Amino acid sequence: MAGNRAVAYEGPGKVEVIDIDYPTFELKDGPGVNPANVGRQVQHGVILRTITTNICGSDQHMVRGRTTAPEGLVLGHEITGEVVEVGRDVEFIKVGDIVSVPFNISCGRCRNCKERKTGVCLNVNPDRPGSAYGYVDMGGWVGGQSQYVLVPYADWNLLKFPDREQALEKILDLTMLSDIFPTGFHGAFTAGIGVGSTAYIAGAGPVGLAAAVSAQLLGAAVVIVGDLNPERLEQARSFGCETVDLTKGEPQDQIEQILGVPEVDAAVDAVGFEAHGHGKDAGTEKPATVLNSLMTITAAGGALGIPGLYVTGDPGAATDAAKVGSLSLSLGTGWAKSLSFTTGQCPVMKYNRQLMMAILHDRVQIAKAVHAQPISLEDAPRGYAEFDAGAATKYVLNPNGYIKD
Amino acid sequence: MAGNRAVAYEGPGKVEVIDIDYPTFELKDGPGVNPANVGRQVQHGVILRTITTNICGSDQHMVRGRTTAPEGLVLGHEITGEVVEVGRDVEFIKVGDIVSVPFNISCGRCRNCKERKTGVCLNVNPDRPGSAYGYVDMGGWVGGQSQYVLVPYADWNLLKFPDREQALEKILDLTMLSDIFPTGFHGAFTAGIGVGSTAYIAGAGPVGLAAAVSAQLLGAAVVIVGDLNPERLEQARSFGCETVDLTKGEPQDQIEQILGVPEVDAAVDAVGFEAHGHGKDAGTEKPATVLNSLMTITAAGGALGIPGLYVTGDPGAATDAAKVGSLSLSLGTGWAKSLSFTTGQCPVMKYNRQLMMAILHDRVQIAKAVHAQPISLEDAPRGYAEFDAGAATKYVLNPNGYIKD
Amino acid sequence: MAGNRAVAYEGPGKVEVIDIDYPTFELKDGPGVNPANVGRQVQHGVILRTITTNICGSDQHMVRGRTTAPEGLVLGHEITGEVVEVGRDVEFIKVGDIVSVPFNISCGRCRNCKERKTGVCLNVNPDRPGSAYGYVDMGGWVGGQSQYVLVPYADWNLLKFPDREQALEKILDLTMLSDIFPTGFHGAFTAGIGVGSTAYIAGAGPVGLAAAVSAQLLGAAVVIVGDLNPERLEQARSFGCETVDLTKGEPQDQIEQILGVPEVDAAVDAVGFEAHGHGKDAGTEKPATVLNSLMTITAAGGALGIPGLYVTGDPGAATDAAKVGSLSLSLGTGWAKSLSFTTGQCPVMKYNRQLMMAILHDRVQIAKAVHAQPISLEDAPRGYAEFDAGAATKYVLNPNGYIKD
Amino acid sequence: MAGNRAVAYEGPGKVEVIDIDYPTFELKDGPGVNPANVGRQVQHGVILRTITTNICGSDQHMVRGRTTAPEGLVLGHEITGEVVEVGRDVEFIKVGDIVSVPFNISCGRCRNCKERKTGVCLNVNPDRPGSAYGYVDMGGWVGGQSQYVLVPYADWNLLKFPDREQALEKILDLTMLSDIFPTGFHGAFTAGIGVGSTAYIAGAGPVGLAAAVSAQLLGAAVVIVGDLNPERLEQARSFGCETVDLTKGEPQDQIEQILGVPEVDAAVDAVGFEAHGHGKDAGTEKPATVLNSLMTITAAGGALGIPGLYVTGDPGAATDAAKVGSLSLSLGTGWAKSLSFTTGQCPVMKYNRQLMMAILHDRVQIAKAVHAQPISLEDAPRGYAEFDAGAATKYVLNPNGYIKD
Repeated sequence: MAGNRAVAYEGPGKVEVIDIDYPTFELKDGPGVNPANVGRQVQHGVILRTITTNICGSDQHMVRGRTTAPEGLVLGHEITGEVVEVGRDVEFIKVGDIVSVPFNISCGRCRNCKERKTGVCLNVNPDRPGSAYGYVDMGGWVGGQSQYVLVPYADWNLLKFPDREQALEKILDLTMLSDIFPTGFHGAFTAGIGVGSTAYIAGAGPVGLAAAVSAQLLGAAVVIVGDLNPERLEQARSFGCETVDLTKGEPQDQIEQILGVPEVDAAVDAVGFEAHGHGKDAGTEKPATVLNSLMTITAAGGALGIPGLYVTGDPGAATDAAKVGSLSLSLGTGWAKSLSFTTGQCPVMKYNRQLMMAILHDRVQIAKAVHAQPISLEDAPRGYAEFDAGAATKYVLNPNGYIKD
Repeated sequence: MAGNRAVAYEGPGKVEVIDIDYPTFELKDGPGVNPANVGRQVQHGVILRTITTNICGSDQHMVRGRTTAPEGLVLGHEITGEVVEVGRDVEFIKVGDIVSVPFNISCGRCRNCKERKTGVCLNVNPDRPGSAYGYVDMGGWVGGQSQYVLVPYADWNLLKFPDREQALEKILDLTMLSDIFPTGFHGAFTAGIGVGSTAYIAGAGPVGLAAAVSAQLLGAAVVIVGDLNPERLEQARSFGCETVDLTKGEPQDQIEQILGVPEVDAAVDAVGFEAHGHGKDAGTEKPATVLNSLMTITAAGGALGIPGLYVTGDPGAATDAAKVGSLSLSLGTGWAKSLSFTTGQCPVMKYNRQLMMAILHDRVQIAKAVHAQPISLEDAPRGYAEFDAGAATKYVLNPNGYIKD
Repeated sequence: MAGNRAVAYEGPGKVEVIDIDYPTFELKDGPGVNPANVGRQVQHGVILRTITTNICGSDQHMVRGRTTAPEGLVLGHEITGEVVEVGRDVEFIKVGDIVSVPFNISCGRCRNCKERKTGVCLNVNPDRPGSAYGYVDMGGWVGGQSQYVLVPYADWNLLKFPDREQALEKILDLTMLSDIFPTGFHGAFTAGIGVGSTAYIAGAGPVGLAAAVSAQLLGAAVVIVGDLNPERLEQARSFGCETVDLTKGEPQDQIEQILGVPEVDAAVDAVGFEAHGHGKDAGTEKPATVLNSLMTITAAGGALGIPGLYVTGDPGAATDAAKVGSLSLSLGTGWAKSLSFTTGQCPVMKYNRQLMMAILHDRVQIAKAVHAQPISLEDAPRGYAEFDAGAATKYVLNPNGYIKD
Repeated sequence: MAGNRAVAYEGPGKVEVIDIDYPTFELKDGPGVNPANVGRQVQHGVILRTITTNICGSDQHMVRGRTTAPEGLVLGHEITGEVVEVGRDVEFIKVGDIVSVPFNISCGRCRNCKERKTGVCLNVNPDRPGSAYGYVDMGGWVGGQSQYVLVPYADWNLLKFPDREQALEKILDLTMLSDIFPTGFHGAFTAGIGVGSTAYIAGAGPVGLAAAVSAQLLGAAVVIVGDLNPERLEQARSFGCETVDLTKGEPQDQIEQILGVPEVDAAVDAVGFEAHGHGKDAGTEKPATVLNSLMTITAAGGALGIPGLYVTGDPGAATDAAKVGSLSLSLGTGWAKSLSFTTGQCPVMKYNRQLMMAILHDRVQIAKAVHAQPISLEDAPRGYAEFDAGAATKYVLNPNGYIKD
């Protein structure tokens, strides 16, 4: 049996590569595993040899110590792999298949899954609807920033790529199907962005850039991306977006210079609760900044897609209100304009097959847009640190050498 | 020329019936008229002899002195009438037609109207998208709690009833088409309530009751209405709703007793920013109470319809935050459950024709559900007072005696 | 092991109750089983003791000898049962559960199932997308007009009723969830019927009546049902529908008498290819009659839901064109009015949970509307004969005595 | 007053440029004017000096003598112009505005217009819902292949371009907004084409090419265009489409070579009733060929958009069935796959603003895709002849010299 190296959270600011057990078709006890899930049989699962597994901005919430994640938690929910073992009950997925794993684990048997709401599956996380690999309070499914990982309900969850060689050739694009491409797309789609829209994306991190690419793919006339980080704005401009530098203040003036009006049809919050202020407040965390700003700049009758994470508690927050997840929102601004809002994790399976088709037929270059960079698994701690420091880079771990230099 | 008696706001807590000018096809200066609208020609309008005009909960915001409404403002945006004069440019509406007037005025010529977003018409209110009769900061169109009223863009705005006699016979139902029935329906519809849904309606005032009726009409399996007022809850039970008494505390326990689970599929906020707390906080205004409560009791994957009014400023509010319309929202609660939210005024024209059909064919008894009571125009001050005191009654003014005793 | 009595097709016009094997977790060879399905392992399945199983109009196509169904084919795709054995891989369905079985078998693992298109599942019928129990050319899954039946992919397919006692009490309503209630609802829903619609349903057989009930549940203002059979029209009137007697000719005149206009907003074809003509042609099969008629009477901008079956070949048809399934359609009539059309089998899982809720909370009386009548399994041949003769009755077989006299 | 040269139908195969009256704000009698429309006052209209007006494939039906169009009928429903006079009741459109005219005339006051179904407006054509400029049986509104043309209900109908100079610069793209771009888009949109779709477009005439461009704009992964005309297929390949040569037979084999499967997700019929057969039948008119073919090649669960025209009568047809518009359709093929179908004229106003945005921001090159070629008004007869002969060209008339050489 193979060994299994994995990236683990080892305390605030500390990420290490450790040895963990090779997976079996059972969810064993370990850091962060929900007691009700310990011993769960997973004959509907497969074991993957990881091809790629990406570092995600939402991992950083844990790494920064902003959550109750236990030490030893294996990280990683953005997984693409090759099937090396199939459980007894798996019927359609085969050994050797190259597959994308949606980050949100779902059972394919509950009411929500049957309604395509796989982000809030009722059967995988004993605590509440919704689950993910390698994430605090999400049931305890072992993370995939590792050489081998168990994927439950494989016939339901996995997206099989049609051709192995083609898949490996486009792997830096396809690896984005596990999370950020569908997540950005969900933001753009639920904001109502379509052919001819003017769109504003708050945040030029990987999800924001993916939302910008998605807005283009959906036919938007103009896509404007706002951020405080000049390197990330440069990245947004590299594939045709307009940009707004938020260190200069609220975005409406810069939007007006671009569009002739200070409003857009639709907006996406790709930042979430760890938002900083705009202009002179750029150095301060202001968790409601993005939402209040988007209500101001979205035209009457418009919509906001909110893939950016908002939490129910944030022990590391600056204010008492923020510690309990309470935001000070000017909802009246949005109400007066009849805005609508869609929140929550992207139900990846609603979009990933279609986005795969767009990648395979060269309709979209998502890897280039988010500046995907493969690094070795052992380099993961460096990747975490650089990403946290604001690098305009999406780090793709390469744990088994599938990506050749 | 006929005289014209009308209900006017004359200061906090003060409503009077006064004499005003008979309307002409021009918007003349007067209390609350936007300067840019003064002198506006309205040859596309008609003059109605008012058949019914209802007192609305949103009028109370002004009457309570919670807004900047000027003294002398003629109230009334829920209007049904008979056409007595048509402007030069009116082509399809004729003298003698019995018509329902959508409370939100719209032009039928702008982008938003063409997209059915008549609640945010761009051409009728110089201040911002959206307008209404007899309402502060809505352009200055004279209110319809009067004997005669001018309706602009009549071919576009008016819903003509097919038969005069039938219309007068069902007038207490049809009068609800100008606002609360579509508004309640919009709340239920945008909350995603459909066949088999379990639904919770916050607030058993007329809009809440209309939302409850709408939920039934949309096929909901169970409709639960929550309020602090026992008389209004009794009204909700009168047409088959379950009820939750919020003086006993948060609604989830009582919901669980009804449904077996403490959650519903969908929820409607028919209260808005003047919300009171639940349980022991029932005596205190807590503007975010309803939204925070609905996020708690709506199941993952659900939606909230929010016809209840939220404002950008509330000079009479209890706290500094509330004075600038800032709500303390636990958005993370909703985000974790992937909830979506639809805010704003109902675009009445999207629904009123279909709801008229349901009334005319006896599919729905909205007047009975909201306990419609006709009173004379001169009695309007009493109606305002009783409604403000919590009467489970929808007051329908009868300015020209169309409703016989 | 229990014996297993079952209803089988034994040649044109001939239905018999025979002994068959008690099911196991394998699809064995037998009449009509697709060779590629022989020996298929079904550890994801459960064995049900049948509570109710209904005779369906589509069974009659086989029984009349209008298909290539082989002798010995066990009939029955409308199944409600109690779980008596669960396969090794079943996780959420338990022995003792009372469940409804969607007539269209689906895997819950293919692209179409993931998109809620369970009527065209890719993995259960080797011939083509879509499958059903006890039906010719549908893969060979054994029919459920029997005492015991195997249901594959049980965690995915089955709808569990929340309470056993309640379920048995409402069993004549709940038994309609396996096919005709969702099928009628699908027709109404895809025709765009909603609150305030005027609707015409062609055909007052059980699916037509279910479509009429569904139209009411969806809020239709007026529901008109047309048929040639006076007993069935009487049944439609029993729950508030208007009716059109097609022996008197095309429906438009009678519709005009009801509505004042000769058109409806939306229409449902609950007849299909075995249609007879209208008026003096009532004695003749005219397969395009219903569709041509519906295009005439549906208003511009409307839609047609077409749950009625159309086939690619009909050896027993009267004309050469009909033998190869070719219809003579006046499509220009529909095109000039911008009509849209939705065809095909209802994806039952898209609707059955919501319709169950409506039944359990007494929002709808489907059994009464379709005149459900329980009979013993041994009486099935009589039920087939009477139904074929036009009885306004939905026959519900009671193979294990769950329904007490 | 200016003179007014115009293109008129003067008998089968005969198109001439004649002198007609300069328009006034009244619909006067003339060839093809519905008697009920004679003398209609049009103070809500404007008079345009035509900038561009395109020859449309649907004009050819008249020119070929396949309709009852009277001699002297002024042709042209694809109009872009400059406002030179505004009627008394026009409020928002001003002299000097550069505007696109939706080919379907609509009132903006009837139920269908309020529901965005402007293709079936109830108030502009006394014969039936729906109208157009310069078209037989469409009410008699004078065609726009002329120097000056009257546009009714101008505030509602017209799409104003934001900037005159920019509009004139992109005029060959913007001229397609009056018909073929929205029409092709409507076909693609109603076929359900979206991000990642595989799509087949039947017909590489201007509407087919516009549908192909639209499919790309909507994010389709692969767009395949089929036709019998090699020059038109070459045009489709020029902007990235795959092509199928229908002279080689039915399209499924060639589709399989492109996609690996003989099916697409969605299909558009951009041909209509004047279809020719495929393969050896290419020389014969077979009006049901395209629809039967599309049902065969569209995957289960898919949809067909049908902008191609189907008629209720075709005096010039080859068979008796075709003369009365009766098509021999294998509907069972579509039914077995649960296909849906959307027919009818495109409601241009649903799409034109958004498509304008895509053009103005350089997201799409429609003029290049359809090979737009400006010619003089006097050259219109040549344009008609060459287009009828199969030129892969969209002829754009330039009646007032706005387009400089």
